Amino acid sequence: MTRDRVRDLRRRIYLILEQGGVGDGASRLVDRLLMAVIVVNLVAVALESVPEYSERYGVVFGLIEDVSLVIFTVEYVLRLWAAPEHLPYHRLGATRARVRYALSAAGLVDLIAVLPFWFAFLVPSELRVLQVFRMVRFFKIARYSPAMRSLLDVLYRERRALIGCVVITLGTAVVAAAAMHLAEARVQPDKLGTIPQALWWAIVTLGTIGYGDVVPITVAGKIIATVTIFLGLIMMALPVGIIATAFADEIHRRNFIVTWGMIARVPLFTELDAGEIADIMELLRAEVVETGDIIVRAGDPAHSMYFIAAGEVEVVVRKEHLRLGVGQFFGEVAVLRRSRRSATATALTRTNLLVLDAQDLHALMERDPRVAARIKDVVEKRVGHEIIGAKGDLVTEEIKRHEGNIEPAKK
Amino acid sequence: MTRDRVRDLRRRIYLILEQGGVGDGASRLVDRLLMAVIVVNLVAVALESVPEYSERYGVVFGLIEDVSLVIFTVEYVLRLWAAPEHLPYHRLGATRARVRYALSAAGLVDLIAVLPFWFAFLVPSELRVLQVFRMVRFFKIARYSPAMRSLLDVLYRERRALIGCVVITLGTAVVAAAAMHLAEARVQPDKLGTIPQALWWAIVTLGTIGYGDVVPITVAGKIIATVTIFLGLIMMALPVGIIATAFADEIHRRNFIVTWGMIARVPLFTELDAGEIADIMELLRAEVVETGDIIVRAGDPAHSMYFIAAGEVEVVVRKEHLRLGVGQFFGEVAVLRRSRRSATATALTRTNLLVLDAQDLHALMERDPRVAARIKDVVEKRVGHEIIGAKGDLVTEEIKRHEGNIEPAKK
Amino acid sequence: MTRDRVRDLRRRIYLILEQGGVGDGASRLVDRLLMAVIVVNLVAVALESVPEYSERYGVVFGLIEDVSLVIFTVEYVLRLWAAPEHLPYHRLGATRARVRYALSAAGLVDLIAVLPFWFAFLVPSELRVLQVFRMVRFFKIARYSPAMRSLLDVLYRERRALIGCVVITLGTAVVAAAAMHLAEARVQPDKLGTIPQALWWAIVTLGTIGYGDVVPITVAGKIIATVTIFLGLIMMALPVGIIATAFADEIHRRNFIVTWGMIARVPLFTELDAGEIADIMELLRAEVVETGDIIVRAGDPAHSMYFIAAGEVEVVVRKEHLRLGVGQFFGEVAVLRRSRRSATATALTRTNLLVLDAQDLHALMERDPRVAARIKDVVEKRVGHEIIGAKGDLVTEEIKRHEGNIEPAKK
Amino acid sequence: MTRDRVRDLRRRIYLILEQGGVGDGASRLVDRLLMAVIVVNLVAVALESVPEYSERYGVVFGLIEDVSLVIFTVEYVLRLWAAPEHLPYHRLGATRARVRYALSAAGLVDLIAVLPFWFAFLVPSELRVLQVFRMVRFFKIARYSPAMRSLLDVLYRERRALIGCVVITLGTAVVAAAAMHLAEARVQPDKLGTIPQALWWAIVTLGTIGYGDVVPITVAGKIIATVTIFLGLIMMALPVGIIATAFADEIHRRNFIVTWGMIARVPLFTELDAGEIADIMELLRAEVVETGDIIVRAGDPAHSMYFIAAGEVEVVVRKEHLRLGVGQFFGEVAVLRRSRRSATATALTRTNLLVLDAQDLHALMERDPRVAARIKDVVEKRVGHEIIGAKGDLVTEEIKRHEGNIEPAKK
Repeated sequence: MTRDRVRDLRRRIYLILEQGGVGDGASRLVDRLLMAVIVVNLVAVALESVPEYSERYGVVFGLIEDVSLVIFTVEYVLRLWAAPEHLPYHRLGATRARVRYALSAAGLVDLIAVLPFWFAFLVPSELRVLQVFRMVRFFKIARYSPAMRSLLDVLYRERRALIGCVVITLGTAVVAAAAMHLAEARVQPDKLGTIPQALWWAIVTLGTIGYGDVVPITVAGKIIATVTIFLGLIMMALPVGIIATAFADEIHRRNFIVTWGMIARVPLFTELDAGEIADIMELLRAEVVETGDIIVRAGDPAHSMYFIAAGEVEVVVRKEHLRLGVGQFFGEVAVLRRSRRSATATALTRTNLLVLDAQDLHALMERDPRVAARIKDVVEKRVGHEIIGAKGDLVTEEIKRHEGNIEPAKK
Repeated sequence: MTRDRVRDLRRRIYLILEQGGVGDGASRLVDRLLMAVIVVNLVAVALESVPEYSERYGVVFGLIEDVSLVIFTVEYVLRLWAAPEHLPYHRLGATRARVRYALSAAGLVDLIAVLPFWFAFLVPSELRVLQVFRMVRFFKIARYSPAMRSLLDVLYRERRALIGCVVITLGTAVVAAAAMHLAEARVQPDKLGTIPQALWWAIVTLGTIGYGDVVPITVAGKIIATVTIFLGLIMMALPVGIIATAFADEIHRRNFIVTWGMIARVPLFTELDAGEIADIMELLRAEVVETGDIIVRAGDPAHSMYFIAAGEVEVVVRKEHLRLGVGQFFGEVAVLRRSRRSATATALTRTNLLVLDAQDLHALMERDPRVAARIKDVVEKRVGHEIIGAKGDLVTEEIKRHEGNIEPAKK
Repeated sequence: MTRDRVRDLRRRIYLILEQGGVGDGASRLVDRLLMAVIVVNLVAVALESVPEYSERYGVVFGLIEDVSLVIFTVEYVLRLWAAPEHLPYHRLGATRARVRYALSAAGLVDLIAVLPFWFAFLVPSELRVLQVFRMVRFFKIARYSPAMRSLLDVLYRERRALIGCVVITLGTAVVAAAAMHLAEARVQPDKLGTIPQALWWAIVTLGTIGYGDVVPITVAGKIIATVTIFLGLIMMALPVGIIATAFADEIHRRNFIVTWGMIARVPLFTELDAGEIADIMELLRAEVVETGDIIVRAGDPAHSMYFIAAGEVEVVVRKEHLRLGVGQFFGEVAVLRRSRRSATATALTRTNLLVLDAQDLHALMERDPRVAARIKDVVEKRVGHEIIGAKGDLVTEEIKRHEGNIEPAKK
Repeated sequence: MTRDRVRDLRRRIYLILEQGGVGDGASRLVDRLLMAVIVVNLVAVALESVPEYSERYGVVFGLIEDVSLVIFTVEYVLRLWAAPEHLPYHRLGATRARVRYALSAAGLVDLIAVLPFWFAFLVPSELRVLQVFRMVRFFKIARYSPAMRSLLDVLYRERRALIGCVVITLGTAVVAAAAMHLAEARVQPDKLGTIPQALWWAIVTLGTIGYGDVVPITVAGKIIATVTIFLGLIMMALPVGIIATAFADEIHRRNFIVTWGMIARVPLFTELDAGEIADIMELLRAEVVETGDIIVRAGDPAHSMYFIAAGEVEVVVRKEHLRLGVGQFFGEVAVLRRSRRSATATALTRTNLLVLDAQDLHALMERDPRVAARIKDVVEKRVGHEIIGAKGDLVTEEIKRHEGNIEPAKK
């Protein structure tokens, strides 16, 4: 096998494992298979702990575990091997990329999902501890669901504030426990006789759980409990407030407002007057893509064209790599030709895009003949160029030059 | 009965059942009647489960059930028949419209509210299962209350994120259960002896319920419970954050800001200078209407005129259908004449409207004679045209032409 | 007593009872006294229910109740009498104003706080029911605290959505109860034998209370409970989301952004160029005042001047009533003279104000001599006018004329 | 020791204790040491309450307490001595600055953390009360964590609204308790026989705790409980709403939007046209710093330059104090020279800064030669000036003059 074919294979495996691609059947199949393995695994662990099932179906459970372990191990090894394909690691060497993956949160979960069980093969150890590790496999599921990943992202991004909440709550619990211990240690020595015991009560109360196993019985204790309950309600508001704000912020960032400034910086639109810009503004939708996100994928149907308002995008068309920057656009040829994407575009940095949907592009061109003329003018040149040159639905070096000068380069 | 009369009847039934019209007495009466039937039904089911009431008033309960069943069945059949009148289904054929209704969430609830009971007539089945289905009838109530419908809309729109929360919480519960099982299986074998049992504890704790039927008693168990409680508090913040953000988003979208750009696109205002536009901006209120919403209804009193900032509106005046687009306005003649609406306007797409209230229109015309002259000029032409032509309080083809050119077409 | 003196007295009593005035010692004293009476009252009712205290201090409790009843009755009668002084009722006749107060939420609480006890004097009735009514007096406390009033306002404004939440939760409870009844009626007939009993479990669970008096014991029951718990967590997010959004909305409305449009409409600033307007914008703070709110009160120290961006303000200076509208300003003379307010200004409608603080006015005039010259020019004319005419720190008819024309009226 | 050296020492101690400086190793070490002492202390107090540990390790616990007490006392005395170095107290005399610190919330916590124990030395008192005070030491931890301090800030800023929530909840609890007492006093006289007992139930229910020690058993009681549960859910939404809004507001204030107005007021940019301003806007990041915050510290690496959009900044370079105001900038020389900061800049008021990161400054100068020329022009003059004069990376009087006139002063 030549080096190139190895590389292609590595890229293929990376795409199948990492990117839940829209049009990629193999990737979707693998994702679903792995999710199924995880769920079967978890159910098996849970049922295995019931003695009667464990006795009757012990063999089945053992088989499930062995098969899962092999699958997850293969998955881990493949991910480790393909790590250099991960875009943010692109500039690192292959080894450093793999170390980075191995030390990332996802990589550690993947490792914990397999390592302890290989140990258990060598050193016979207590089964129960292993069960907890086996349950950790559940968190692998977050990989395959964008919704869940974004929820965990929010928690991760706000981890500092959330840990702050936990510390404040713990501190309040400690003070409440000392006070309650002072009030009821003599009345309920078995339940509140020591501060650690009272701490259990305080945490159960501040968390608004209220199991009812420890309850104050004196008036002083009830007053302390009342204060603790109110503090608990206020404390509970902190994480909620933090997360609600984080979500609002997230959504705000995603749906950032298309501003005149942005449109004015797209060369195609600079000559429009205020009324025409207002027209365009109505039609454009803003989108933020994170580093490494794929914007369009070769072979997908084309629904819209994109203008770069901020950031950089890498376009790969037939092994050629192009970098597009602020003010450049891509994806319009496939829209106008009503064909499929012929290239893949990936964000190299956090990128603000202005998206123009296919029907809006047509509507815009119908409604305003001057705008249409200008767009057609550019597209004609680009398509002309394409027939001669790169043949992608993409801005090429030619076009870049065209946009830099007002006068397009003669051919 | 001619075909037209059948159609009119179908339309009438649709309006009575679906649209809680402001001025429509019949529709309101039917809505309230159906709500009353639902509430009586629920109370009857609940009381019937008490043996002594069941024995004593069994006949009454049976009667209530039979009458309700007939009413709900008739309602379902009528809704099915009238489905093609539903605006978003307008372009579909009658049969496809009915299938779409039958498969919609509302249609399924309507079906479940009646189907099992007709089955029960044929195949005698266990009563208790039917009770649960009968309770589902409660959700029919959401149809008749816009507030409740909008709450359920928010839940539905965020369903993906909310399911994500549930899955994350379940996953955390599974890990917490395995850990707790590890810690206390030997101490409390009857309560935490298996992972499924421990899962019950974990869910009750993560949900901050804390029934107190299963409580950890060892130090290790209490530490695991403390971590679980804190995770529960953080997890609980996720759905709250999602929904709070969704509400804020919803309100933000409804009360979107009137911008200079919007006003500048209304032909009536293009010639105003900045100061005059600032004046108008103060007076205009923004409103978003969803596809299929009725904006004004013929016969209603006229409180305001409307400018279309985005989207399309269909106006039906004496069987004529007109489509109005961005920059056009309607509803001003009835306001200036202080008469009732002579036409019904429905949003064909999600439409952004700028609303000018009657008193503000008068105030504006009083305060600024130049603006008044311009508005009067347009209205005079429109009213003159109306006397000759369409006689509605609406922009007609004539007016459209007038607005396209600066010079109105001579007559 | 002449009619005027009665009117003055009525006004005085209204101000003492209703407006927690900043500089009004009598009003503050009365407010605190009434709050003290309420708190003493509540504590007395609570302690009276303990048999041993009731026996020992019965006479004291009786005395507290009698004195409170007289105080609250006098308060109610005075409020009823002074109701026509309430600004939003100004245009109604005296009788209609009183009826409006009597039927308002505050009026009803005031009535319920006294009426049942006068009845109890006539018809001897059961003491316990009266206790509940006596507790209602607590809600009178909201009157004397702006913070609490604004919290209750938010709840009141969102009452429709909140009732929607309650209905949805009740509906979910009803379905959950029917399902749980189906699952466990045979296992726990004493606790879940009827649907109303199961409803108690469902509500305690959906409210995340979890008393633990009814707990499912079968696997089916626990699965139903798990679903109910998750629904409860999601349902709980609804009111939180509604109220968080309402607060954000409230704050957004209060701190609305000072826009160029607003400044451009203040005649004093129309001649400024963009740079100067940017300067002013930094200094102006926006404030929204509700109908009937007092903006400045005669005798208070003067910290800022006000521009009206929207709405109308009534100024009372030495019994003269002036109405100021959009673009006019007031309160600047007292700031420049560093004297106390000589007039009281009240919002006639919901009014958007632009506030310029004293130090910023001085800073602005120091920094930019052109702006200073213009402001001094206007103020000189106003002060000159005042010496001849109205002598208040207010825009007078003269000034209004001045601002209407670009050229000031010659003197 | 001369006076100056005492002052320098005081300043050093202040910086070590108060400012968690980025580059200051000593400060970080002291912070971590104090945090460790606090945590050890708390754990010791908790374990000491367990009789068996107390007996066995009594001497260790005593030692820990004595050492901690000495450390905290020294800390308190040093903080008191160094208080005049606190910037907001700068203009007060030394004694008044110390009194202000002693009466601040942080100062009181510091005092309570030591005072009771010195008392206990003199007057032998009950150990248990002291334990609670010892737990208060926990709150000293907030000093060393910016995240926790900002959480407590939010709670403190919203204290009025939160107290309002507590009062409303207490009021609702009182009414619910009276109602429940009325319903169940006869059925459960031992648990709900008096209103104070019923109040305990009401608070436990409204706080969604639900210990289960008091549970209604009659139908009337359960209905009252249901209403109370729903009120509790709504009440719980209030603090969450308040805090979520406060967070959103906080973040909004910190990430305020960079506006054209701000950029237009920076003299360096006034000559740019709209397109160039749009370019700059993309690159500038907004930052709000509070009074007394240190923006750059001499000796730190230089990552960005700063423009003052609002507020005032004091710059200390070699004992010289300079004040910079709106429109001025600082920190650019070190960025362009890629050297370390030679001065410390502190915010004298709440200051809005526009931050331009080093790489963006270079990128901007590369991309747009005209902008680069202008910036280089200014910097050259400044650096030239610096070689002759102040030698800091700061705007000096010379530069201020330069920015006032369009033409720079000749040299």
